Amino acid sequence: MAQPIHRDTRGVFIIAATPFDQTGAIDWNSLDRLVDLYAQTGVTGLTILGMMGEADKLTADERRAVIDRVLARTDLPVVVGISDPGLGNLADLGRHAMDKGAAGLMVTPDRGPARDDRVEGYIHAVAAALGPDAPLVFQDFPLATGVPVSARLIRQLSEALPQMVMLKHEDWPGLTKISALRAQERDGAVARLSILCGNGGLYLPQELARGADGAMTGFAYPEALVQTVDLHHAGQPDAAEDLFDLYLPLLRHEQQPGWGLALRKQILMRRGAIACAATRAPGPRLTPTDIAELDRLIARLEQRLQR
Amino acid sequence: MAQPIHRDTRGVFIIAATPFDQTGAIDWNSLDRLVDLYAQTGVTGLTILGMMGEADKLTADERRAVIDRVLARTDLPVVVGISDPGLGNLADLGRHAMDKGAAGLMVTPDRGPARDDRVEGYIHAVAAALGPDAPLVFQDFPLATGVPVSARLIRQLSEALPQMVMLKHEDWPGLTKISALRAQERDGAVARLSILCGNGGLYLPQELARGADGAMTGFAYPEALVQTVDLHHAGQPDAAEDLFDLYLPLLRHEQQPGWGLALRKQILMRRGAIACAATRAPGPRLTPTDIAELDRLIARLEQRLQR
Amino acid sequence: MAQPIHRDTRGVFIIAATPFDQTGAIDWNSLDRLVDLYAQTGVTGLTILGMMGEADKLTADERRAVIDRVLARTDLPVVVGISDPGLGNLADLGRHAMDKGAAGLMVTPDRGPARDDRVEGYIHAVAAALGPDAPLVFQDFPLATGVPVSARLIRQLSEALPQMVMLKHEDWPGLTKISALRAQERDGAVARLSILCGNGGLYLPQELARGADGAMTGFAYPEALVQTVDLHHAGQPDAAEDLFDLYLPLLRHEQQPGWGLALRKQILMRRGAIACAATRAPGPRLTPTDIAELDRLIARLEQRLQR
Amino acid sequence: MAQPIHRDTRGVFIIAATPFDQTGAIDWNSLDRLVDLYAQTGVTGLTILGMMGEADKLTADERRAVIDRVLARTDLPVVVGISDPGLGNLADLGRHAMDKGAAGLMVTPDRGPARDDRVEGYIHAVAAALGPDAPLVFQDFPLATGVPVSARLIRQLSEALPQMVMLKHEDWPGLTKISALRAQERDGAVARLSILCGNGGLYLPQELARGADGAMTGFAYPEALVQTVDLHHAGQPDAAEDLFDLYLPLLRHEQQPGWGLALRKQILMRRGAIACAATRAPGPRLTPTDIAELDRLIARLEQRLQR
Repeated sequence: MAQPIHRDTRGVFIIAATPFDQTGAIDWNSLDRLVDLYAQTGVTGLTILGMMGEADKLTADERRAVIDRVLARTDLPVVVGISDPGLGNLADLGRHAMDKGAAGLMVTPDRGPARDDRVEGYIHAVAAALGPDAPLVFQDFPLATGVPVSARLIRQLSEALPQMVMLKHEDWPGLTKISALRAQERDGAVARLSILCGNGGLYLPQELARGADGAMTGFAYPEALVQTVDLHHAGQPDAAEDLFDLYLPLLRHEQQPGWGLALRKQILMRRGAIACAATRAPGPRLTPTDIAELDRLIARLEQRLQR
Repeated sequence: MAQPIHRDTRGVFIIAATPFDQTGAIDWNSLDRLVDLYAQTGVTGLTILGMMGEADKLTADERRAVIDRVLARTDLPVVVGISDPGLGNLADLGRHAMDKGAAGLMVTPDRGPARDDRVEGYIHAVAAALGPDAPLVFQDFPLATGVPVSARLIRQLSEALPQMVMLKHEDWPGLTKISALRAQERDGAVARLSILCGNGGLYLPQELARGADGAMTGFAYPEALVQTVDLHHAGQPDAAEDLFDLYLPLLRHEQQPGWGLALRKQILMRRGAIACAATRAPGPRLTPTDIAELDRLIARLEQRLQR
Repeated sequence: MAQPIHRDTRGVFIIAATPFDQTGAIDWNSLDRLVDLYAQTGVTGLTILGMMGEADKLTADERRAVIDRVLARTDLPVVVGISDPGLGNLADLGRHAMDKGAAGLMVTPDRGPARDDRVEGYIHAVAAALGPDAPLVFQDFPLATGVPVSARLIRQLSEALPQMVMLKHEDWPGLTKISALRAQERDGAVARLSILCGNGGLYLPQELARGADGAMTGFAYPEALVQTVDLHHAGQPDAAEDLFDLYLPLLRHEQQPGWGLALRKQILMRRGAIACAATRAPGPRLTPTDIAELDRLIARLEQRLQR
Repeated sequence: MAQPIHRDTRGVFIIAATPFDQTGAIDWNSLDRLVDLYAQTGVTGLTILGMMGEADKLTADERRAVIDRVLARTDLPVVVGISDPGLGNLADLGRHAMDKGAAGLMVTPDRGPARDDRVEGYIHAVAAALGPDAPLVFQDFPLATGVPVSARLIRQLSEALPQMVMLKHEDWPGLTKISALRAQERDGAVARLSILCGNGGLYLPQELARGADGAMTGFAYPEALVQTVDLHHAGQPDAAEDLFDLYLPLLRHEQQPGWGLALRKQILMRRGAIACAATRAPGPRLTPTDIAELDRLIARLEQRLQR
């Protein structure tokens, strides 16, 4: 069983897709191969059942089965997304995940009015329902949730809840927020928070320079994120960004909200990891034009990589 | 088995609460008593698993069990809310409900961008997944869904999909929309649409005067809605509104979004229908101040009714 | 010149409409008569250039001219809405209003992300731009602004800025927020905040019972608000609510967001205060059906009042 | 006087910043130099008083003065943003702009409910107020306006209003929308629409490949947009994208909503066009960290360009 995430965790947690066949059923063999592909790219860990994992289109039983399958397949640490309109269902899923060896649980305050006290109360209720031993990732993604959260409130939660060890940062624009969070830690009075960045990785070099610990996003070339983060941590920020910039045209293309999921699955199918690129309805579907456009961007990437 | 809803359906479909005990488990005996109370108030039918039924906090298994229990308890027509992020889960639930004898299925276009073509495509996909024999209710509730829909688009859907026989109208402000929808039908070129009004019933007399067929909402005194609609249909709009106005102070109090559900459950408990007024977390909870305020409004209502 | 608003201000500040003629020009004579009507109804003060005053459709010159005209016409305290995308324009208008004798300035944090720190910083910047001598009203109206604000943040602002003496409360649902704000004051550690309620007055009796000081809204029968508040403050809450309930059917009708402004202007025209009920485009316009519906509600009110 | 925009207009219309001095006053000399810089980069035209021009923070008099100054300084076609809460003020500004020689007027349906019929009615009212001789640009920017619009509705407007000759496309994700719009034109039954792309230019090569005619955005290196569009139109899409990709890291950095304006002004100051990079409050302000980060990105760009 992998080590739990903690306040110094760094690296790349790749957000995993959930593969389906043409009928919409979960394709378990593809899920195995996908986990293997991710592991081969050198990622630090996986995050499953996030938005990109189409978790809200899975039944409770399917979510459990995905957890079981992935945790049986890999020794990497696995963070499990458990956001749910009902706190009871959220807690049930979280306990199941921890029992099976998850490294942490991810939650976003995506319901109810966007008041700071409501968000604070909700995350406290989540933590109470899950108990102090379940490491938590707070997902800050206002573009998707409609709930903006201040750096101040994130810190308050991080201080009040020792188990809230990690921030999935994907506010946008959000670079100054990373700086603000790190400035809060400067005098040592507060506990460090691990910060992994989402938002498709679009600003990853800048985020690392401002103090982020890595990435937690779903780019279909995880090795690019891994190398960018590794080079940065090795003290070579320019080499990190040179490498990153090679992938940027495709990364920017994938980062399109909602639609990008279909692009990522198409690439994962091309890479042999999954048998079918379909998303569950009402998810996006690619036209021949969309696929040709993507193929062209991939060809351009491959040419750049060969140089 | 009750008759399916159709384009001339009128009356009051009461939106049913889902009773829980203090642990958050569904209280099946209370659900039975609640169905009986609703039936005793003279409602035309029930709508279960709507927003007020906290459907998004129930597992798929629980939703099925609620359907089974309610349909076994009553011969009244029952509309089942089936909105779900995933089209497959939505269709599975819808088929289950129809197999068990539901009178219709209710769906709202609550995901994705609020473009008229996206909404249109989504409802067509829903209809295709459910087949032509399942009568559909289109729920138009932009305050909750963030998806505004024009009278024109509602009509296009109603014309393209013969099974879309009813509108749950709760746009706000929305009185002119009812007039617009009825004006479209004036020359007989398009098929009539049954219009039942939600939004807590706050404008029910005006909605009836503009051509609505009744109410589909969750006021905890269903008899008030029934009498208002019956008097209106009996050609006594002033008597209908006199009756309605007696209840208006409390109805307005209940209509507060989100919070109102807790008030309604409190009243249903007072009326002996349910054993516990709790909502599932993270739902609202009433303080003693809130309950005293509600009690006072109820006492004032009872005094008015006695006069 | 009237006394400035302060932390113990109570009563009814009526939100004033801005009358236009059929060409869309400001009708100054109607504005005078409207101010006179308001004064005759016994209101404590006026609030001009709010949302109901269509302030965002007025040029900077027109806003100044409205301020000048109203302040020349009445000795009642006048609060001036100064919300504006630009802080400079906001401050210019605010200084003009204070120079002419306004009793206070109203502002809402209606721009930018709804983060508590952003809202806090913005209101501090507003206060700094206006100086410590301009009494401020914080308008909390998330339904219109999209910016939810917690009771905690309102209190922080009220404590940090001595000039922020009043809250225009129109969160919805918002009754528990009033209780929370008053609970903060219970031990005397913080300065009292005057709370006047907007939201069309829909819950005024409940708001008063929870500690609100009165109303700041635009109901076209200001005398009903005045009597409700006066009776409540005279220790007769039941009589207050009996009076209020007589007006509730019409008040609820007027409270419809956006559209309600056209209804109010229609009533103000019927009452002889303004010559033309038109709003500036793209504001709502009433059809004959809408007017007949309104006339019926007014007739029903008048019958109730005669009994 | 420059030629009006029309349905075959192509190229790059650069969205112009409005320069202010440290006091927040418009810096007219900087505005002149900025116009000159834009002209030197080879742009086809300018768009002034857009969101990036901070138009909503300017008074009506200031907006007129900006129009006059820019039109006096350049013979390039100038599109003028006229969006305004009030239709009268919008029309007054539009007429002023056309009288002074503007090449077209830009408007976005940014108020009121996002219903397709409301948007349609509003744009018809705008067109009626401006008359048939004022060429219109429809700005489709739901991320900023909250108003999604379908390709179908854009086409309906384009067909009903001959003067609506151009779309400023910045829906996101929006690539398939361009394909949908061009597919509508395929059989020649409808009039061609000029499509210039905003959204910071983040997908410009893909947008051109799908049939867009160019860009209308505010990147601080307009020459990059000009060369990308020119190379594409010269039949060299790969060379176009190679050039574009050199700028992509910086372009992506500038594209951050809201905050990006401050970055662009900083670059325009570095390039000698404007004397002061300040935005009007409550606009964003850069910290030394932000500026150092930007400088590094610029240095990396310059290195790439020298290779």
